[in-house]
Amino acid sequence: MIRVGINGYGTIGRRVAEAVMKQNDMKLVGVVKNTPDYKARLAVAKNIPLYCVDDSGVSKFRKAGFDVSGVLDDLLKEVDVIVDCTPGDVGKTYRERYFGAGVRAVFQGGEEADVAETSFVAQCNYERAVGRRSVRVVSCNTTGLCRVLNAFDTAFGLERARVVIARRAVDPEETSKGLIDAVVLDPVEIPSHHAEDVNTVLPHIDIVTMALKVPTTHMHLHSLILSLRQKPTREDMLKALSETTRVKLFWRSEGFKGTANLYEYGRELGRPRGDIYEACVIGDSVTVKDNEVFLYLGVHQEAIVVPENIDAIRALMGEASAEQSIKATNQSLGIV
Amino acid sequence: MIRVGINGYGTIGRRVAEAVMKQNDMKLVGVVKNTPDYKARLAVAKNIPLYCVDDSGVSKFRKAGFDVSGVLDDLLKEVDVIVDCTPGDVGKTYRERYFGAGVRAVFQGGEEADVAETSFVAQCNYERAVGRRSVRVVSCNTTGLCRVLNAFDTAFGLERARVVIARRAVDPEETSKGLIDAVVLDPVEIPSHHAEDVNTVLPHIDIVTMALKVPTTHMHLHSLILSLRQKPTREDMLKALSETTRVKLFWRSEGFKGTANLYEYGRELGRPRGDIYEACVIGDSVTVKDNEVFLYLGVHQEAIVVPENIDAIRALMGEASAEQSIKATNQSLGIV
Repeated sequence: MIRVGINGYGTIGRRVAEAVMKQNDMKLVGVVKNTPDYKARLAVAKNIPLYCVDDSGVSKFRKAGFDVSGVLDDLLKEVDVIVDCTPGDVGKTYRERYFGAGVRAVFQGGEEADVAETSFVAQCNYERAVGRRSVRVVSCNTTGLCRVLNAFDTAFGLERARVVIARRAVDPEETSKGLIDAVVLDPVEIPSHHAEDVNTVLPHIDIVTMALKVPTTHMHLHSLILSLRQKPTREDMLKALSETTRVKLFWRSEGFKGTANLYEYGRELGRPRGDIYEACVIGDSVTVKDNEVFLYLGVHQEAIVVPENIDAIRALMGEASAEQSIKATNQSLGIV
Repeated sequence: MIRVGINGYGTIGRRVAEAVMKQNDMKLVGVVKNTPDYKARLAVAKNIPLYCVDDSGVSKFRKAGFDVSGVLDDLLKEVDVIVDCTPGDVGKTYRERYFGAGVRAVFQGGEEADVAETSFVAQCNYERAVGRRSVRVVSCNTTGLCRVLNAFDTAFGLERARVVIARRAVDPEETSKGLIDAVVLDPVEIPSHHAEDVNTVLPHIDIVTMALKVPTTHMHLHSLILSLRQKPTREDMLKALSETTRVKLFWRSEGFKGTANLYEYGRELGRPRGDIYEACVIGDSVTVKDNEVFLYLGVHQEAIVVPENIDAIRALMGEASAEQSIKATNQSLGIV
C-alpha cells in the first residue's frame, strides 16, 4: 500500500485526493489545507484527514471548529509520496522539506522543469520516472499535446508541430481575475512556454506554440497543424488516435461543435465534477493535405492531469509497469 | 463627381456612407434603410437622404415622422454606383435590379464570390476591378489576411500560409446572439471558408485556415504561421510590413497585449466610432524560425473594409489608378 499525502487542496489537489482514494494500492493519509472554507468542510465530509502547514493554521482551523490531524511535517512522517498541489512556483519552496523527510514528491506543471528529476506524461515516458525521488507532472495543455503528438509520432513520424492554443481566461471559481471582452496574447512573444514544456517530455519534437487567452472558463482549445514524415490516410490517423489511451474522439454528428458540448458531456457522464480526463479530439476536424494534418483538440484544464498524478505516484515507487499503472488508473477513473 | 448610393445602413453601410461623404470626387445621393430606428435619426442628423426599398417602407418611415426621398428604384436612377451593404446573401437578390437600372455595384464579402465579376482588396488587385460592372469587397478577415500575405509574398515569396482565426462571437450591438462561455469551432471542418476567400484575391497562395468563435465583440485575432521561399531576417520582415499601406505595427512596450488595447487605441485616435481601418500586426510577435514566420494579426471587423469600399467605387468608374485611389482614400480617412 502506497501511503500518499497531498499538499494543497485547490483545483488539482481536490481531484488527486479523490483519485488516490479510488486506487486499490494507495491510501490517502491526509491533505494539507490552509483555509477553513467550504472546501475544507467537503473534505471532512469525505473523511479526508486535514493537516495544516504550521501551527498557526492549526489554531485557525480549530477555532473554526475543525478537527486537524497535525502539521505538514507530521504528514510527511506518515507517507511514502507527497503530491505537491500548491500554486505555481510555490512547490519548489517545499522541495527540501519533502526530501529532508525522506519522502518522494510529485510536483505539478506550474513549477519550472528543474523542480524535479524528470517531467512526466504516463503514456509517453513513464519509465523515466521509475524509482526517482521526484517527478513533475506537466501542465494540462502540455499533457494533452504530448498524448496526441506522441500518438502521431509513434505511428507516422512527426516532423513538425505548430499549435495555436486558445486558453480559458480563468478557472470557473476564479472570479477575482474576471473575464474580459478581449483576446489577450499570452504571451505576446512566440513561442509560448508550452513548446519548451512539450520538449521536457518529448525532447526530439520540433514544436512551436502560440497562445491566446479568451474569455471562457471551461477547457482550452488547441488548433494543431502537424507535418508528418509519412503520408497516412485520414482513416489511418483516426485509427491511431482511437487506439491511443486517454485520447477520445468526438463527432459533430453527435453534437460536438466546441468546448460547451464537451463540458456538457463531462457533466452528463457522471464523473466527479464533470471531469474529462481524456484529450478531446474533434474527429470531423482531422484533415489531411499532403503530409500535413490539421485538427482541433480540447483540454479540460482542471482534470486532464489527474490520471498522470496517479501514475506518477506508482512510477516513483517503482511497483508497477507503465502498462499496469495506466490500466489500473484508467479503470479506477472510468476511462475506457 | 461619382454619384453613390448605399443599400443597407447597418454596420458597414453606416461607415461607408460617411467615408463616401469625405471623398472629394464622390457625392452620397442617399441610403436605403428599412427600419425607422435611432440609426435612421442619426442619418437625418448627418443630412443623409433616406430611401426605402419599397412603398410600404416609405409609409412606415413617414408614420414615424421621417422625410423619405423615395424608394430604391428612385435612388438607382440618381447614382453611378450602388454599394450593397445588405446582410450576407441578400445582396445577390438585388443584383439584377442594380444592373437593370444601368448602375455599377459594389457587393460585400458576405455574398458568394460569384455575385460579382471579381473579388477585391485594393492594394492586391485593384486593376482587376477597373471598368467592371460589379466588384465584391471581401470580408474583414480576408481583407486583413490579403494585405499581410500579399506584403510577404511580394517581398519574400510566400510558400504556404496556415492561419488560425479567433473570431469575435458577435458585433457589439448583436445582443440577441449573445456571448457564451465556450470556444465554438466555426466550422468544425477544416479549412474554414476564409482560405478559399483569400484565393479569390490571391489565387496562387497555398493557404489553410482554421476558425474558432470566442466570446468577444471587438476584433478578430489571427495567428499566422507562414513559410517563405526566401529566408529574410526579422528586421526585413518588420520593414516590409511597416512599408505596406493599411498594415500597422503595434508594440507591447507601448502597451499592446491584445484586442482590448487595440480597441482602446482606436477610440483614443478620434476616428468615427473608434474604427481601425488598418490590419494590426503585433510587432513583438513577429518571430522567425528558419524560413517560417509567426505573428499575430488583429482585424477590426466593422471597419477594415471601409477603405476597400471607397477604392472599389473608384475602380468601377475607372477614373483613378490604384495608387491615386488608395492615396485619396487614406488621406480622407486619416490612414497614415
